[in-house]
Amino acid sequence: MTHGPEQLDQLESVARAQRATRSFTREPVDDNLVDRLLALATRSPSAGNSQPWEFIVVRDPATRHAIGALTSSRWSSGARDWSQANLGPELTADVDTGATGGVAGAPVLVIVCADTDRCPPGSVGESVWPAVQNLLLGATAAGLGSALTTLATGGRDLAALLGLPPGVEAMAVVPLGHPARPLRPGRREPPRIHHDSW
Amino acid sequence: MTHGPEQLDQLESVARAQRATRSFTREPVDDNLVDRLLALATRSPSAGNSQPWEFIVVRDPATRHAIGALTSSRWSSGARDWSQANLGPELTADVDTGATGGVAGAPVLVIVCADTDRCPPGSVGESVWPAVQNLLLGATAAGLGSALTTLATGGRDLAALLGLPPGVEAMAVVPLGHPARPLRPGRREPPRIHHDSW
Repeated sequence: MTHGPEQLDQLESVARAQRATRSFTREPVDDNLVDRLLALATRSPSAGNSQPWEFIVVRDPATRHAIGALTSSRWSSGARDWSQANLGPELTADVDTGATGGVAGAPVLVIVCADTDRCPPGSVGESVWPAVQNLLLGATAAGLGSALTTLATGGRDLAALLGLPPGVEAMAVVPLGHPARPLRPGRREPPRIHHDSW
Repeated sequence: MTHGPEQLDQLESVARAQRATRSFTREPVDDNLVDRLLALATRSPSAGNSQPWEFIVVRDPATRHAIGALTSSRWSSGARDWSQANLGPELTADVDTGATGGVAGAPVLVIVCADTDRCPPGSVGESVWPAVQNLLLGATAAGLGSALTTLATGGRDLAALLGLPPGVEAMAVVPLGHPARPLRPGRREPPRIHHDSW
């Protein structure tokens, strides 16, 4: 049974529990679970079913440290100022934790990449972000913390660090691990719905 | 209980059942269910929790017809040739059905828009596509067919049709309705996983 009131209830419950986790314990994450979550990611749609995703699963401490340093440097050179001006102190402090080591402290970082040569022109975003969302929901359903982070992906520094070939772009860094503390559901405004036209 | 082996099993089952539906029956879709699916969409992450989404729920037959005409025109002027050359006859034939009236024949079209002024520069994609994926998964869990379509969103024609203000971009047209026929799970390659670096 793949659908019905109970399935929708369950999905809502998982989706509500999904929060950006930026601080992790040292408890390990099983390789088979990571593989399972990545298979779940690939069940998402992509333009022309092009499936342009490539996943780099980073466990090596030195590589995680280097990604953390890149994240931290991007955060302090501009992004933090924007955040303080626009998002307020609470969220900024939370990203502070993540950018200065919290995210890189997760036992696993999944770098979600796009092979831009595989998909129709202009359709990379719609072909990769849904896969990231499946990954985040799967992690939540499995009891792991995760987050969609992009600070480290600007420019080609991360691509150089990971040895990505031309045409392959790093889109997101998704930490996976056990949350250092439980997180309550995030704040959301009611959906802004218009009928038939704006 | 929001997580555990059973929750992950359930999510996998819903994700596997998610297919691009391009042909619908005339059976109506309840307004409360649409509202519930849009609330689910907003549980997704967005850059700085900016929540830039705006939803236009189109039921009006004339507007749906106009969106269908726009889709069909975009399909025949270029996209279809690309699809035939790159995707093969089966998928092309399926999109033919959708582009020439199938998608517009759904009782509800949700136009997912982004208010680009709300989110940090360069972060529109990562802030809207995850919401679309939640919407698609929710529709699947509720037993509805849906699809992520973007053919009608190029240029400003759709924006003009819907009266979108400057800065608001139509990102996707998601039909919601009861599938004309059951669809088997889509084809996927095994995930391409690299360890620590490419």
